[in-house]
Amino acid sequence: MKLGVCYYPEHWPQDLWAEDARRMRAMGLSLVRIGEFAWSRIEPEPGRFDWAWLDRAIDTLHAQQLGVVLCTPTATPPKWLVDAHPDMLAVDAQGRPRGFGSRRHYCFSSEAFREQSRRITREVAGRYGRHPAVVAWQTDNEYGCHDTVLSASAAAQAGFRRWLARRYGSIEALNRAWGTVFWSQEYRGFDEIDLPVLTVTEANPSHRLDWRRYASDEVVAFNREQVGILRELSPGRPVSHNFMGFFTEFNHHDVAADLDVATWDSYPLGFTQNFFLTPEEKVRWARTGHPDIPSYHHDLYRGMCLDAQGRGRWWVMEQQPGPVNWAQWNPAPLDGMVRLWTWQAFAHGAEVVSYFRWRQAPFAQEQMHSGLLRPDSALAQGAVEAAQVGAELRELAGRTGLDGLRVRAPVALVFDYDALWMSRIQPQGADYNALELSFRIYSALRGLGLDVDIVSPRAALGTYRLIVLPAQLHVADDLLQRLAQSAAQLVLAPRAGAKTAELHIPAELPPGPLGALSGVVVERVASLPPGWVETVRWADGAPATAGRWREDFELRDAQAEACFDVGRAAVARRGRVRSVAAWLDAAGWQRVLRAAAQDAGLATADLPESLRISRLGDLIVACNFSDQPVACTPAGARQPLLGNDTLAPCGVAVWKA
Amino acid sequence: MKLGVCYYPEHWPQDLWAEDARRMRAMGLSLVRIGEFAWSRIEPEPGRFDWAWLDRAIDTLHAQQLGVVLCTPTATPPKWLVDAHPDMLAVDAQGRPRGFGSRRHYCFSSEAFREQSRRITREVAGRYGRHPAVVAWQTDNEYGCHDTVLSASAAAQAGFRRWLARRYGSIEALNRAWGTVFWSQEYRGFDEIDLPVLTVTEANPSHRLDWRRYASDEVVAFNREQVGILRELSPGRPVSHNFMGFFTEFNHHDVAADLDVATWDSYPLGFTQNFFLTPEEKVRWARTGHPDIPSYHHDLYRGMCLDAQGRGRWWVMEQQPGPVNWAQWNPAPLDGMVRLWTWQAFAHGAEVVSYFRWRQAPFAQEQMHSGLLRPDSALAQGAVEAAQVGAELRELAGRTGLDGLRVRAPVALVFDYDALWMSRIQPQGADYNALELSFRIYSALRGLGLDVDIVSPRAALGTYRLIVLPAQLHVADDLLQRLAQSAAQLVLAPRAGAKTAELHIPAELPPGPLGALSGVVVERVASLPPGWVETVRWADGAPATAGRWREDFELRDAQAEACFDVGRAAVARRGRVRSVAAWLDAAGWQRVLRAAAQDAGLATADLPESLRISRLGDLIVACNFSDQPVACTPAGARQPLLGNDTLAPCGVAVWKA
Amino acid sequence: MKLGVCYYPEHWPQDLWAEDARRMRAMGLSLVRIGEFAWSRIEPEPGRFDWAWLDRAIDTLHAQQLGVVLCTPTATPPKWLVDAHPDMLAVDAQGRPRGFGSRRHYCFSSEAFREQSRRITREVAGRYGRHPAVVAWQTDNEYGCHDTVLSASAAAQAGFRRWLARRYGSIEALNRAWGTVFWSQEYRGFDEIDLPVLTVTEANPSHRLDWRRYASDEVVAFNREQVGILRELSPGRPVSHNFMGFFTEFNHHDVAADLDVATWDSYPLGFTQNFFLTPEEKVRWARTGHPDIPSYHHDLYRGMCLDAQGRGRWWVMEQQPGPVNWAQWNPAPLDGMVRLWTWQAFAHGAEVVSYFRWRQAPFAQEQMHSGLLRPDSALAQGAVEAAQVGAELRELAGRTGLDGLRVRAPVALVFDYDALWMSRIQPQGADYNALELSFRIYSALRGLGLDVDIVSPRAALGTYRLIVLPAQLHVADDLLQRLAQSAAQLVLAPRAGAKTAELHIPAELPPGPLGALSGVVVERVASLPPGWVETVRWADGAPATAGRWREDFELRDAQAEACFDVGRAAVARRGRVRSVAAWLDAAGWQRVLRAAAQDAGLATADLPESLRISRLGDLIVACNFSDQPVACTPAGARQPLLGNDTLAPCGVAVWKA
Repeated sequence: MKLGVCYYPEHWPQDLWAEDARRMRAMGLSLVRIGEFAWSRIEPEPGRFDWAWLDRAIDTLHAQQLGVVLCTPTATPPKWLVDAHPDMLAVDAQGRPRGFGSRRHYCFSSEAFREQSRRITREVAGRYGRHPAVVAWQTDNEYGCHDTVLSASAAAQAGFRRWLARRYGSIEALNRAWGTVFWSQEYRGFDEIDLPVLTVTEANPSHRLDWRRYASDEVVAFNREQVGILRELSPGRPVSHNFMGFFTEFNHHDVAADLDVATWDSYPLGFTQNFFLTPEEKVRWARTGHPDIPSYHHDLYRGMCLDAQGRGRWWVMEQQPGPVNWAQWNPAPLDGMVRLWTWQAFAHGAEVVSYFRWRQAPFAQEQMHSGLLRPDSALAQGAVEAAQVGAELRELAGRTGLDGLRVRAPVALVFDYDALWMSRIQPQGADYNALELSFRIYSALRGLGLDVDIVSPRAALGTYRLIVLPAQLHVADDLLQRLAQSAAQLVLAPRAGAKTAELHIPAELPPGPLGALSGVVVERVASLPPGWVETVRWADGAPATAGRWREDFELRDAQAEACFDVGRAAVARRGRVRSVAAWLDAAGWQRVLRAAAQDAGLATADLPESLRISRLGDLIVACNFSDQPVACTPAGARQPLLGNDTLAPCGVAVWKA
Repeated sequence: MKLGVCYYPEHWPQDLWAEDARRMRAMGLSLVRIGEFAWSRIEPEPGRFDWAWLDRAIDTLHAQQLGVVLCTPTATPPKWLVDAHPDMLAVDAQGRPRGFGSRRHYCFSSEAFREQSRRITREVAGRYGRHPAVVAWQTDNEYGCHDTVLSASAAAQAGFRRWLARRYGSIEALNRAWGTVFWSQEYRGFDEIDLPVLTVTEANPSHRLDWRRYASDEVVAFNREQVGILRELSPGRPVSHNFMGFFTEFNHHDVAADLDVATWDSYPLGFTQNFFLTPEEKVRWARTGHPDIPSYHHDLYRGMCLDAQGRGRWWVMEQQPGPVNWAQWNPAPLDGMVRLWTWQAFAHGAEVVSYFRWRQAPFAQEQMHSGLLRPDSALAQGAVEAAQVGAELRELAGRTGLDGLRVRAPVALVFDYDALWMSRIQPQGADYNALELSFRIYSALRGLGLDVDIVSPRAALGTYRLIVLPAQLHVADDLLQRLAQSAAQLVLAPRAGAKTAELHIPAELPPGPLGALSGVVVERVASLPPGWVETVRWADGAPATAGRWREDFELRDAQAEACFDVGRAAVARRGRVRSVAAWLDAAGWQRVLRAAAQDAGLATADLPESLRISRLGDLIVACNFSDQPVACTPAGARQPLLGNDTLAPCGVAVWKA
Repeated sequence: MKLGVCYYPEHWPQDLWAEDARRMRAMGLSLVRIGEFAWSRIEPEPGRFDWAWLDRAIDTLHAQQLGVVLCTPTATPPKWLVDAHPDMLAVDAQGRPRGFGSRRHYCFSSEAFREQSRRITREVAGRYGRHPAVVAWQTDNEYGCHDTVLSASAAAQAGFRRWLARRYGSIEALNRAWGTVFWSQEYRGFDEIDLPVLTVTEANPSHRLDWRRYASDEVVAFNREQVGILRELSPGRPVSHNFMGFFTEFNHHDVAADLDVATWDSYPLGFTQNFFLTPEEKVRWARTGHPDIPSYHHDLYRGMCLDAQGRGRWWVMEQQPGPVNWAQWNPAPLDGMVRLWTWQAFAHGAEVVSYFRWRQAPFAQEQMHSGLLRPDSALAQGAVEAAQVGAELRELAGRTGLDGLRVRAPVALVFDYDALWMSRIQPQGADYNALELSFRIYSALRGLGLDVDIVSPRAALGTYRLIVLPAQLHVADDLLQRLAQSAAQLVLAPRAGAKTAELHIPAELPPGPLGALSGVVVERVASLPPGWVETVRWADGAPATAGRWREDFELRDAQAEACFDVGRAAVARRGRVRSVAAWLDAAGWQRVLRAAAQDAGLATADLPESLRISRLGDLIVACNFSDQPVACTPAGARQPLLGNDTLAPCGVAVWKA
């Protein structure tokens, strides 16, 4: 469990660097990420490199025994490069090149830029790959940020045609897979295929899905080129990339397959304001963030890069240290939250928590983004709390071993990028948001006190006792096999198995290949306007409500466990498999999941919304996301290591089990 | 009264066709519409036609005595055609070509596409025009869908200039008609005139109105070319086009003038979600649809194509059979609604109700649109209900004659596309929606139990006892004459006569030429922000409210029948003419219309919002748009033919008068 | 105090003109503005001028002793000019030329249009500059209306590069000023710099700020060219321009520096509907307008053009006379409001109030905009009220001198265009609207009965006893000096001094150079989502609330005067300087400002929201913005000149002090 920080030596006078490094060290930080936006300083003119400053920066950090996480600088190609290769710019869905002046102004399919990316990566890795300070690499920065995965460039169109030709072999196969007989969309050759933009109305959904798959593969290929060079020139250093939150534009599992460590950038308050929470939730969690937003991603990214022992290697590469600048509203965290978030990440298995950024920059786009230091170099509240965690870590490490601790979650929640794309392409109801549903179900699990692995559809499932498919629109054969062979309780949320790989309705109707397990067939689906509420009742009369989405089940080999007031099964059970026919409220999901957990022999709790408990090895960690104290004695908690049974506002407690 | 279905043989293996046809027949269907999106199958390569499959499809249907409604396939030109004539694409108001990949990707003004349209129409009609199975034609499909009437193409600009030159003769006349002296917009020649797009602020309203008129005329001309070819090559078969709901982008009366039968596509649940209803109404009517949405269009399209006896010939060409895919939310109809909608259409005079579509397609854009059959070929609920109607029709036909029945409505509501364009070009208040007002007034009439003809401003008005002008911004001389010569009670909603044909304020102020009839002058108009409510009181003290819009009447030769609390007349009467000064609530409109109906000697009822009654010949039909039973004994109902005086939820009853 | 009207003789038959002029005179009008949109009539073909009609129009007005305010017609270049110079069109941020067909279709940076502007100005001024009827000039019309200040044209890009080269001298200086090291945005030369449009995400804020400054300077230069020609060819006539309300796209103080008289266009009801008021406020003030909207602008524009005695010379050039056409909703003013608005303007020092427009035009874009006359030439309500004011003015002038009266406000509120641009470029919270905050604080001052000068940051401040900085994100050295030298009470709203001139955070943190005066440092800022409310308490326990924005003060040399319930100072005081840490509600601002006013020795009142009192010389004027009578006896009011102590609904009273 290490602390780190993101640093931009190029932003500051060189005479500040040594003192900065000394203060980092004193604060308990041991890793420093640098370089991801420094191309114009590294290569100020085409082919002319200025290494002196970067040599000195790395040496200065090294002198304080700080490990450097070095980045390839490809997220911000300099103006001279854009001017030399204007075709490298991504093109938006309206056909407009996306210009220079901010960041990520490149098209993944541009061969010119790909060559430049390889060249600069080779230069940087060649110079620093074996530098003793360099302990890890990050490729590029936040792939896809600002909607930059899809590009409607000529290069993307040409690449898409080649990708389709490889995928389908013949145009007839593509015509079948896309169902182009519909609306006379048939193609006579791959050369006739455009990108699905600027169509009169909705383009063919299979066409759109393949475009997303192609674009995702381009990100994978781009990243793989960098990884290959880094592995060659910087042996032994793990290679990572910093993913984002609530971001599904490319298949992260595919990119992560080429990495050693998955990292992500955790901004709990920004995500709380900018995503799908209700206005009431945005106020309630304004200064703490929704408790389950960080852990949802911790548990997701833990599933990206498994080591030889199957342990997920992951970091928080950027941790919110105070107010940010990019959300619709940017509140300040309550005192204690930066410490809490850090402990929460460690409790979910993070190897490193690295704050973004060291010192708030007083200029340019992110000048209102706080850092550990204020622009005047005074400590901000986040730094005080980071230092506190540093001290606590040292103290705990002295009392108990912190190495090799591992999350062993009994619950798996499957997260499938391809299926999420399917749901976005045809949501069928304006507020059917599969990512939100996945989060809401996760949140219900966490409210029951359960530890959760969020896993790839390709993950081994054998160890889990409860498996949840919140948005599994398509179920591949191998996933089906693993589900069938599992002994776990299984909970299928609406739309499970609703589509084939080509984005058709399966011939046997949803849930398609899952039908044999679930014993139900979905006869009909309905999306429901806001305000339309269906009541759901269990045999004991306890009600929950449902909205947004409901399915009509035909029960072929299953029993109703709960019914809609207006008829039909809302929850159907066939042995260890429960199928849910609607978008339930929180009480409804907890009801279903509690029953499944009990059937799986898992003890559940009934936690307040603002209290969360996690288990890491033999540690139990509790986090209080409120401004009031709360009593908490987790089952099995024996020896308090940090805090006690009454958690202070924004407080953390750690016990040994 | 016949039932039909829309069918896409090209979507299914040929070995399914015979069984499909057999089941259609067994279900009581007698008409099958095919071919409207099949161009790429009919002509897979330029000039190479594949008739074999279509021959077989038509013969297969014919073998079951099913009549074929054949379509021209022009709504979906194939990719090879677009690639050969890229200029055929429509251009949006931002100047971007609207590309291939969905449907309706053509510009009505493209001469290249017009030629192709004539060519393919001639080919199809030449081959099947005299086929005994072919009983009717449909031109193209849903003209204008997806905002495709207006095109900012070079061809449209050139055509618009020619159209203007013909209309005005001289540029001086145009300058006068448009008032171009305002803001120095004067033109020296027709060649200087651009399309009114991408202007800095609002373009000249007369310019915009003429653009709409021109674009509408282009649709008329396009359709007329097809009709001419079909009449030549397929004599004796009626030619139709399927219009849409709440759609006013071109003048349907003008297009219909060239057709034998008007048809429209009725999706009650989709329209309920996607149009102007309040959020509360969208929930209330989510699973039944608003009761007056289908009948509003039935009564409108009945007025499009009058036969020699003045009887409106019309069909429902596409009837919603279950959930659709294209609304913001897509609920499932309550059980019984498909039957109810079918009976409602027949009660309003439909010759045919044709369901869209036979079998739900499991692929492409509309895969979530239900059909009579599920994708696995099992019967969906809609099929059960369609078959029930089929049986009921046979049963009733046995007991009483169903032929030649005719709606004879005592009330006319005038529907004027040109006037609606005027109101959209300058609404003057953000929520002044003339189409909605027309619908709200219609709904009030239906709540009074009155049968209504929605008529063209060119219609004969002599037989009506009550005539309502809900949004008649302009009153042409001949309409004025017919109104003046009528003995009917007349109700003028706000903005009647507010504009000249050129979209000027008339010299005598609104209501312009209606002033002599109404005895009022509109001194001033105000649009009112949401939340501003005016109370309106009649002499007996009964209040209603008004919002959105109010006018200040000067009473020249009229008496106030109701007044605003804050002064002035809200309803003014001069003999048989009532003028209304504001957008009233439902109670207010019912109050005004009830009084007018009584003065016209028409009996009125006071129906619950979910109960509607219609008269067809000597039949009386009641429909219950609710999930509760309702008692209903219409005045004059003598002999029950179907159902009884207590309508079941979603139930229908038919009496002989 | 004179009345005027805007007139378009070119819109009407010439035989109406003499009668129009006679009626103007009879109504008490003495000034007539003409010509601002008449280019196509003045020069119907390139180089061919038609002066006859304009000669006659001016002579006709002159014959009634009406003074003519003549305009340069550059706001509406004719079509032939656009066709000859298509590059003169402005280009929007999406790269699309903004076409002919409305108005303001020119780019300020187009040299071709600049030349044409000089040419037509010289022609018009040459012909009428010394005409005895011409008493004043207006340049162009409403610079910037319809978002026309910023243009992304090639000419603007070239001009921007030249402007930057002049401003920074070296590219290194620019790179430093913009902080381009961030995200590798560094430039190697001015030629590399694009306009900050179509970037992938937010462009550099300093880049955006400089673009705004450049574009504003282009307006200044454009106007200055016209002023120079008018001064040369029409000596002795004051030159004005009509500014708009709530419009900050260019620096009005800079443009006004070249003018003799500032004028503005006052549409109280339109502004009430179209700007930031809450829905409840939009209903409450629908028919009176918010009371402080007109006076806010009166007090702003009074500060634009000071004469030799330091008296602000300003007019209302366009006064709303009835409903307008361009707001989202367009209610009718309550009877009396046109008179009230006129008196309100005079009470704030207007030399002229000129109604827009004489007769409502029945054609083209503004046909729904009312005039003093209806389209049928009958008097509208506005005309009745204008005539009443005319009579009242004559009567008062007979009883007391109305000449040379001057507003002498004890309170200054600083209005800084540059600072407002900074806040818009990085608002940091979606509802932080600095212009609104400025207005809300002004409104609080007016509710306390205080007269206010809204002044430039370059204004002399020596005479004020209370100075308020509502949105002073940047404080220039000379402003700092004047504030430091002043003896006035000083109130700093949030974000005062938050930025340097380059739009960086100052090295010493906000409030930057104001820190020595305020004794506080802003440690951290937070923007707050809607619904998050902070309670603020004073020592006496009285609470107010705050939302949207809050700052954490470090009190270095100040005392807390009010605190947030959740800790820290909400209002901090150091001697005569109060710093406010949050966006307070109305009660909160009144509390702070009342205390400051009392410390300044200023008496305050506690006026109802709908009652406002102003002082002009020795006159006291009260206006009742409600439909109920209200009692009012202002302190010091001795001799009633108009009305009495009970103001009628929409009534006005005037006393001598």
